[in-house]
Amino acid sequence: MTGCSGSSTATVRPNKWQEIRLVSYPVGEPHDGNFALVEVEAPDLEVGEYLVSNEWISLDPAQRLRMNPNSAGYLPPFRLGEVPASWAVGRVVSSRNPSVAVGACVLHNSGWSECAVLNGCESRPPRLIDRHPALRSVDFLGPLGWPGLTAYAGLFDVGRAQPGETVFVSAAAGAVGGMVVQLAKARGLRVVASVGTREKADLVGREYGADAVVCYRDGDIRELLPRVAGNGIDIYFDNVGGDHLEAALASMRPYGRIVLCGSIASYNDSEAGRAPANLFLATAKGLILHGFLARMYEHRWDEFSDHMRTLVERGQMKAPMTVVEGLEAIPQGFRKLFSGGNVGKMVVRIGQ
Amino acid sequence: MTGCSGSSTATVRPNKWQEIRLVSYPVGEPHDGNFALVEVEAPDLEVGEYLVSNEWISLDPAQRLRMNPNSAGYLPPFRLGEVPASWAVGRVVSSRNPSVAVGACVLHNSGWSECAVLNGCESRPPRLIDRHPALRSVDFLGPLGWPGLTAYAGLFDVGRAQPGETVFVSAAAGAVGGMVVQLAKARGLRVVASVGTREKADLVGREYGADAVVCYRDGDIRELLPRVAGNGIDIYFDNVGGDHLEAALASMRPYGRIVLCGSIASYNDSEAGRAPANLFLATAKGLILHGFLARMYEHRWDEFSDHMRTLVERGQMKAPMTVVEGLEAIPQGFRKLFSGGNVGKMVVRIGQ
Repeated sequence: MTGCSGSSTATVRPNKWQEIRLVSYPVGEPHDGNFALVEVEAPDLEVGEYLVSNEWISLDPAQRLRMNPNSAGYLPPFRLGEVPASWAVGRVVSSRNPSVAVGACVLHNSGWSECAVLNGCESRPPRLIDRHPALRSVDFLGPLGWPGLTAYAGLFDVGRAQPGETVFVSAAAGAVGGMVVQLAKARGLRVVASVGTREKADLVGREYGADAVVCYRDGDIRELLPRVAGNGIDIYFDNVGGDHLEAALASMRPYGRIVLCGSIASYNDSEAGRAPANLFLATAKGLILHGFLARMYEHRWDEFSDHMRTLVERGQMKAPMTVVEGLEAIPQGFRKLFSGGNVGKMVVRIGQ
Repeated sequence: MTGCSGSSTATVRPNKWQEIRLVSYPVGEPHDGNFALVEVEAPDLEVGEYLVSNEWISLDPAQRLRMNPNSAGYLPPFRLGEVPASWAVGRVVSSRNPSVAVGACVLHNSGWSECAVLNGCESRPPRLIDRHPALRSVDFLGPLGWPGLTAYAGLFDVGRAQPGETVFVSAAAGAVGGMVVQLAKARGLRVVASVGTREKADLVGREYGADAVVCYRDGDIRELLPRVAGNGIDIYFDNVGGDHLEAALASMRPYGRIVLCGSIASYNDSEAGRAPANLFLATAKGLILHGFLARMYEHRWDEFSDHMRTLVERGQMKAPMTVVEGLEAIPQGFRKLFSGGNVGKMVVRIGQ
């Protein structure tokens, strides 16, 4: 049992804490010099504010997009000197907000810091987390949090997955991809997956239950995919973009749906991302490419949450975590996201 | 009054006729040597067959795709020696089919030939055309035929256009684009259009009623579009692909729809078509890119036909034609499709 989900423990209000700030915009792969570890004094709380001591912080590929100063159309770029926002889960250690008790567990978006001062007026509102004994607090950064909603809404709302259909999932050992595979299998779809290593292929095939797994480093995904696509793909859940999207377009069945969830292949590129050269096939086959962000389906949170909790409690939703120890290891861990160095969700453990 | 729609005239059953065959696959822009004009003897009709003497033949950009020997995913490539299929309208001059009378007017897909022997079992079934005095037979290659259904289904079924929304239409002086502009205006949308020449801009603005028109040859469409896109585009009706699609992605409002109808910008490329480098914006904005072919909406023919006939009969649907005279002028006319040499539908007049 980890963190918030246990019984209340004595809380300590820190006088100072550490945070990571973005001090220069990376070009290509981020390096340590783009970030600074800074110690800050705890401020006095205003009325309505509360202080959260973080237990787990999420590292997400999409944060890289906000480290481009000209990031257009997505969330605005991080400012230099700013703490990069990311989801985190922690415990309230001090509160001047009558609706938030000391000891409460909170999922919030305040980023790479040991602590956060919140007031409930954040643009991405914090969520109080139910303490259910079978759940770990870190799961609220994975299957029970935004990655889980991404997988659920992407597969069922955007992809309109139906039993008997074939879904192709890229980055299938990643946080979202792994859940998509398991949700699809539980719903009765045939699952074809791609991963970057043999070890990940084992995980996705044996543990998650994918029907066929290709390792894209064994060759060109555009040649590998047709060998396992059978009669073709009804749904492609795209976590990658680039060659994978091109391969999927070629193997899609008529009237198929492509769920545009992410394109990690291009996040580190200062040039715009590589686009599929065969997009015209969408016209010929009557395909739908549908982009989305999980926040667009936040209204589905309760249904998603019930569904996923049941799977997690029954042990039917495996959600391995790659754990980075401490704030100071964040830059290195963050880099690993882009070289396939994580299995499942990458999270940072803080002060435990 | 032209052709079939007039009263029945004496019919002559020809003994021989001319047709155009594809004799080599073009690389890049087609040239005269890719085609041969051949005279053929009229065969004796079998039971069930009937002979149509063509009055009008359609020239369509998408035919170019079938002149690539490796055309994947779309219709199969034309074989060498084959008459390139295209829609044509003509009169029955001889019939051994009890359901098709001599004198009937037929819309069929038998291509670049003065005559066609049909039997009703074609993969794209012929349609008998109602003789309505206000309609010209050539209109069944335009607003009352497949280009009309393309515009109608693309805008309303695929694009789900609603009054008050803003639609951006590329190739807006072309056969499909021009009808999209007029259908959208009649439904109460704001229309932003792009064309290739000042003359076409006049046509689209003054005659079709577009609210704003840019001439993409005046600069980079990615810079021109934002100046007229106002608060952003809800629907992009894409007849072009390439830079236009990239420009549209940048100017789309959240949850917008992109109707992937054609990508004429790439049809002559032996390399795969240029793809939008900013496709990731579809994820950030929750966009839908939806490809389609008109045949996927053939079940909408009757509703479309009623709607469009009313507009045509009232003079509310202008459908100018660019007329090529005679079979022998087809190669030259076909080339002009790709250099912006047509206004509205390009058609070939046969033996009138």
